[in-house]
Amino acid sequence: MEKKVKIFDSTLRDGAQGGGVSFSVEDKIKIVKALDQLGVSYVEAGNPGSNFKDLEFFNKIEKINLKNSKLVAFGSTRRKGIKVSNDENVKSLLTANTEVVAIFGKAWDFHVTKIIKTSLEENLKMIKETIRFLKDRGKEVIFDAEHFFDGYKENPEYAFDVLRAAVAGGADSLVLCDTNGGAFPNEVYAATKKVVEAFSVEVGIHCHNDCGMAVANSIMAVEAGAVQVQGTFIGIGERCGNANLSTLIPNIQMKKGLYCIPDKHLKKLTSSARYIAEIINVPLDGSMPYVGNSAFAHKGGMHIDGVNKEAHSFEHMNPELVGNRRRFLMSEVSGKTTILPMLQKLDTRISKNSPKTQEIIDKLKRLEHMGYQFEGAESSFELIIRKHLGKYKPFFELKYYKVIEEEPFNNREGSSSALIKVMVDQKEEITATEGNGPVNALDKALRKALEVFYPSLKAVHLTDYKVRVLNAEDATAAKVRVLIESTDGKEVWSTVGVSTNIIEASMIALIDSIEYKLIKDSES
Amino acid sequence: MEKKVKIFDSTLRDGAQGGGVSFSVEDKIKIVKALDQLGVSYVEAGNPGSNFKDLEFFNKIEKINLKNSKLVAFGSTRRKGIKVSNDENVKSLLTANTEVVAIFGKAWDFHVTKIIKTSLEENLKMIKETIRFLKDRGKEVIFDAEHFFDGYKENPEYAFDVLRAAVAGGADSLVLCDTNGGAFPNEVYAATKKVVEAFSVEVGIHCHNDCGMAVANSIMAVEAGAVQVQGTFIGIGERCGNANLSTLIPNIQMKKGLYCIPDKHLKKLTSSARYIAEIINVPLDGSMPYVGNSAFAHKGGMHIDGVNKEAHSFEHMNPELVGNRRRFLMSEVSGKTTILPMLQKLDTRISKNSPKTQEIIDKLKRLEHMGYQFEGAESSFELIIRKHLGKYKPFFELKYYKVIEEEPFNNREGSSSALIKVMVDQKEEITATEGNGPVNALDKALRKALEVFYPSLKAVHLTDYKVRVLNAEDATAAKVRVLIESTDGKEVWSTVGVSTNIIEASMIALIDSIEYKLIKDSES
Repeated sequence: MEKKVKIFDSTLRDGAQGGGVSFSVEDKIKIVKALDQLGVSYVEAGNPGSNFKDLEFFNKIEKINLKNSKLVAFGSTRRKGIKVSNDENVKSLLTANTEVVAIFGKAWDFHVTKIIKTSLEENLKMIKETIRFLKDRGKEVIFDAEHFFDGYKENPEYAFDVLRAAVAGGADSLVLCDTNGGAFPNEVYAATKKVVEAFSVEVGIHCHNDCGMAVANSIMAVEAGAVQVQGTFIGIGERCGNANLSTLIPNIQMKKGLYCIPDKHLKKLTSSARYIAEIINVPLDGSMPYVGNSAFAHKGGMHIDGVNKEAHSFEHMNPELVGNRRRFLMSEVSGKTTILPMLQKLDTRISKNSPKTQEIIDKLKRLEHMGYQFEGAESSFELIIRKHLGKYKPFFELKYYKVIEEEPFNNREGSSSALIKVMVDQKEEITATEGNGPVNALDKALRKALEVFYPSLKAVHLTDYKVRVLNAEDATAAKVRVLIESTDGKEVWSTVGVSTNIIEASMIALIDSIEYKLIKDSES
Repeated sequence: MEKKVKIFDSTLRDGAQGGGVSFSVEDKIKIVKALDQLGVSYVEAGNPGSNFKDLEFFNKIEKINLKNSKLVAFGSTRRKGIKVSNDENVKSLLTANTEVVAIFGKAWDFHVTKIIKTSLEENLKMIKETIRFLKDRGKEVIFDAEHFFDGYKENPEYAFDVLRAAVAGGADSLVLCDTNGGAFPNEVYAATKKVVEAFSVEVGIHCHNDCGMAVANSIMAVEAGAVQVQGTFIGIGERCGNANLSTLIPNIQMKKGLYCIPDKHLKKLTSSARYIAEIINVPLDGSMPYVGNSAFAHKGGMHIDGVNKEAHSFEHMNPELVGNRRRFLMSEVSGKTTILPMLQKLDTRISKNSPKTQEIIDKLKRLEHMGYQFEGAESSFELIIRKHLGKYKPFFELKYYKVIEEEPFNNREGSSSALIKVMVDQKEEITATEGNGPVNALDKALRKALEVFYPSLKAVHLTDYKVRVLNAEDATAAKVRVLIESTDGKEVWSTVGVSTNIIEASMIALIDSIEYKLIKDSES
């Protein structure tokens, strides 16, 4: 691959405009390091003049050696009617000590006259003079032509005047921005092509996702000749977000064959995306292309069958190339092929045509009709199979439980108490606990009673608890499904329970969780 | 608008392949009704031969009159080497009694020889004969050309043979499927154009989102002449999901000017998407184009300033056209504008700058920080304002409640009993009931006690009960939010409660529901 498309990451700048996104200085440093290790060309990180946090960040980041990425400070052109050298915001950009500065200016005449309220000529001067000022001080200058596509539609001549002013000022590249996210793929292609043909400097693209097409619009721009692609990781940003770089990098490098990041780093894509999501503190959408936990998850029986025969029959690429993995989901629509590996793990003699295989399929169908769902509850699923195959012995018997809920209303502490009796090898154990609500009280009581016999349960705790009301129109008498995720610090497993009574549904899932742990321990 | 693009919704069929998605029969009926009201052309709903749930669904849906949408049953071509009339799966499609049937067949030679392992000629026969069989029985038949774009790339002649076989069988439309989601916008455009030029039947498009471009690819197909667009609501589906119809409908109708749904229904788009997300039980991504809660949320100071001067300066369209609204993040100005109409309904003297207005905003912010959400709970919201404005008097006092949960495990009946004491005008009432779980028992006990004083409560019953775990990583001690919908046969209202204890959260919402009803009665 010879031709290179430069990836310009704006997670820390335009991404920070997203709802709920707020970076500490340490967050920003961690993300810069992760992006540098991945190997993007540019990392845009803010403006030292805009706030103390950014100032502190630029002071700290200067001491860190980046291997692959250039750091970029971001700011506006000078304000109207003053000299560049008197504009505090422009001057503050120099204090960031970055090799590169990105400057945005208006490319839509309507914005010039109605929003910043100046003349079309003054706007051109603001752009040219600001860029010239920074070029004279040795900076690489990227010009972001804000609202370029809206401007091009309404007044193409002026939109081009703006780009000419930037080039006259010495801009190293022209970035065409779809700031409001309303452009369509063919419009982006056509306009970008005109710009690429008219100018000799590098052309870039910056898209927003308001019509759900930011990634495709960026691809169309690359096909029209753009060689710089701006976006954010996992697509965060104002309104509907920016073009998602975790989708664009493999789209450009693996599908279009244009080099973006070192080839060997592609495998880090999934872990990088998940790490950045962790820092932003948002759950990474399971269905996110390439990097989502379900991006290569198959559910339909025929799809699973096909992938088992030839992986590329139902996969557009090998998930390992981007560090992700293939998953098969359990469900009523999946058939024998899905559950066979699990059956054979427990009993090697079993085959697709064994009567037991069909019996288990039928049992799963009945349970799913009752409201069970095993996709997020592989351990309950395994217990059902074990019971059916005779690969199961009970570790304890639950004799009874009682919960007492007593509320002088609004007193939140210790209002639930649970009492439980279990039997292990003819020995009884009765315990009682208080808890934060009835389920929490029972959870504590059950484990307290069983730890007497099985001390390894002390390491177990729950990491997730989900409730879904199944037939909500029956209101408080409706069926509920409870999903529980547990860990012993080494492994994570998940279980499910269904009942009209939320306490019973929770208990079914809790008991499965404990049984699964005890089986796991006894077999290791 | 003359030209029409038919919207084909597959939320209930291809969408059900998504991870974590599982529809009850009631869920499916609700979604069909919502889609019909929105006005999509086709609703694909499954296969009565594949499982009991779909069979039950098709039996029930037959009794419901749809106004705008045609119901579609979905299945495969006949299996290789047998007669169509002997294929149970094909025959089962007829039992759905739908006007339309969608049949998929392989359009990629590799799939024919390596996955279903038959000859290229037999595959063509399977397609032609299956479609002919259904046409002879009066069905409108849509042919889904599975893997069309992959097939077209590797063996274009055979991909076209497949389409010709479908037309020879009598197919009413040919749908080009990017089953693996690996196609790029320009490829989709070029291939679709060839098909549109070569065939006189209607051409449709079915895209998956594995490269993050399903929406754009669908748009490119429409630009190439496709007149049917398949997708799912909020984009659910296997792996990375299907083309998102809540994005595509406004993209096609408002941006491309092609008619999809009745114009006056566009305003229902946001509420429909949110309703469907509720039924699927997934949180609707705030940044989702057009319908997300943040799709028109502005954070940057300059953007807020711009939008205040001229809305379209930083908005690609008016959010109200799709039933969404503009928000300014971290800005109390937006808060005030939103709640002012409600405040003025209760107290005409109040204005934007009254101290009460700010106090209520602050209170709402604190409650939202605690986990409350008032979008689906307008009545709880009104009660908070009434209390703050002194437009509230208590109708009863809840002295205490006790719930006893007693389980000899697996005995589901009458395992919860509740005891409650209320006071009204110095008179006490103690009642007890049994119920299906603790919340159901309390719900019945509370109303039984209060009906003594307020007989109008006899008409009240709950129509919906939803639970969402807020900080799931705290597992059974996590905070839960309960949303309740109630009706007295005339009006519907909704209330909310938040607590770490699910019983307490439910009681807060139940009490709000009863108080709201009593206020309503006293003021009418």
